[in-house]
Amino acid sequence: MSILVVGSVALDSVQTPFGSAKEVLGGSATYFSAAASFFADVRVVAVVGDDFPEEHLAFLKRRSIDLQGLQRVPGRTFRWAGEYGFDLNDARTLETQLNVFAEFRPEIPEAYKESELVFLGNIDPDLQRQVLRQVRSPKLVAADTMNFWIDRKLEALRETLKSVDVLLINDAETRQLAGEPNLVRAARKILDWGPTSLVIKRGEYGALMVREDGWFAAPGIPLDSVFDPTGAGDCFAGGFIGYLANTMNFEDANIRKAIVMGSVMASFNVEAFSLDRLRRLTYPEIEARYKAFKRLAQFEDL
Amino acid sequence: MSILVVGSVALDSVQTPFGSAKEVLGGSATYFSAAASFFADVRVVAVVGDDFPEEHLAFLKRRSIDLQGLQRVPGRTFRWAGEYGFDLNDARTLETQLNVFAEFRPEIPEAYKESELVFLGNIDPDLQRQVLRQVRSPKLVAADTMNFWIDRKLEALRETLKSVDVLLINDAETRQLAGEPNLVRAARKILDWGPTSLVIKRGEYGALMVREDGWFAAPGIPLDSVFDPTGAGDCFAGGFIGYLANTMNFEDANIRKAIVMGSVMASFNVEAFSLDRLRRLTYPEIEARYKAFKRLAQFEDL
Repeated sequence: MSILVVGSVALDSVQTPFGSAKEVLGGSATYFSAAASFFADVRVVAVVGDDFPEEHLAFLKRRSIDLQGLQRVPGRTFRWAGEYGFDLNDARTLETQLNVFAEFRPEIPEAYKESELVFLGNIDPDLQRQVLRQVRSPKLVAADTMNFWIDRKLEALRETLKSVDVLLINDAETRQLAGEPNLVRAARKILDWGPTSLVIKRGEYGALMVREDGWFAAPGIPLDSVFDPTGAGDCFAGGFIGYLANTMNFEDANIRKAIVMGSVMASFNVEAFSLDRLRRLTYPEIEARYKAFKRLAQFEDL
Repeated sequence: MSILVVGSVALDSVQTPFGSAKEVLGGSATYFSAAASFFADVRVVAVVGDDFPEEHLAFLKRRSIDLQGLQRVPGRTFRWAGEYGFDLNDARTLETQLNVFAEFRPEIPEAYKESELVFLGNIDPDLQRQVLRQVRSPKLVAADTMNFWIDRKLEALRETLKSVDVLLINDAETRQLAGEPNLVRAARKILDWGPTSLVIKRGEYGALMVREDGWFAAPGIPLDSVFDPTGAGDCFAGGFIGYLANTMNFEDANIRKAIVMGSVMASFNVEAFSLDRLRRLTYPEIEARYKAFKRLAQFEDL
């Protein structure tokens, strides 16, 4: 089945205690697509400038990602620069240059309009809705957002959420969006606004899925080499939605497996800068790490 | 089987965003004992002053906790005052009055010396070793410690660790003790110093157990009423060691169950101030919550 993703394609400059990378491939749509491409067909709607390196397009094509919806316009590509301390859970943004992304208006190619799954990356909630108006009848809509939109465009975001099945955000965003410090009550409030599932991303601590019929906690896997957490959330979403697209089963037990697959893809991504770990990742490695998550989390009944 | 615990018995004053409690029953040995008493016989070695309320002793006796090793000396009982913000993971200590605890020298009653399991609460590592010299041949020794001792008495702590089977500390203490920012490498280093198992307590995120044969991640259970996290770590230790004492099986699969039982007991404790939730806790409630942890964490193979 096919996934339509809308989001950013960027050139990132990142500093961590373990090294730095300059103007490397990044962006929410990029990370999402690369991770999801291990499981399903992915169609990208995004924009880059005329300075965007050809080699990056070649990489995405090698992963069979459909770039028909990737607009190429005059000007410079979106750039982000950030740094992380030893606590890799928090990024400090050093610079954001929107460049061609400032005027981005998502246009969905005709061939994309029948996509079964849609992932709305972290962009203006008005643009997220503009995407949804152009697709016919997706079976599952997932979305990301961030504190910036919760602060500035809460009403637009609430409107978007009415059409979203799965919202993926972090702990702090969950509390902020609901205006409620207790995570359980915050999550229940958000489920009242439209989504049937809320996936709370918790960095090294894993992820928590909230649905009306219960909660699922996926652990984070302890890694001895975490180089760069950039894109981990989008790789999580890519593994999660990719696995759902591959199986087209939206029952609780399968959604749990999809969450773990999201954690698996995120865990690989942080092992190297940019998308470098995904470039050399193989499906047997993915299966082996899923098994490692299973060993990590399993315990018997009393 | 019997557990010997050495630690503090205190009167706590606690402020949280949800209320406050003044001069209520607290202390590491108290929380540990109350939690462990649901599973095994517990023997306490600690000290209180002559101001310690009789009703607290009566409560501990009702839970069949052996108080023969509880010294009662002239002076005031150890007092601790602290507060928590909405992020309940971090306590801010407002005041510590050591009082009679300042001169505490653990003396193990003859009847305690054959205890099969020993839990060394968070006290001076020299005192922890003094306890171990007085017990005959415990089958399992577990210990807690904190940043205060890592800062001030690292060598004494390293010496104690040589005789400890299970060390229970938090993420930050793990990194600090090993002098290594990566948790995996920090944990491996600590296992080289003596313990066969390291249990890393992560508050609302659960716990992580590290052994040579692998890792186990127990989730934290999302709670809609968290009132007071004081004593959660000691209740965790009480559930964990209590379950091991009850089953006397130190194989990986059973240790995993014990870790979950620790999480279960901690999750109850935070639902009320002081030990109030444990006072009215029943074993069927414990079993039901263990099942809830199982539902929370389970997922299928690929």
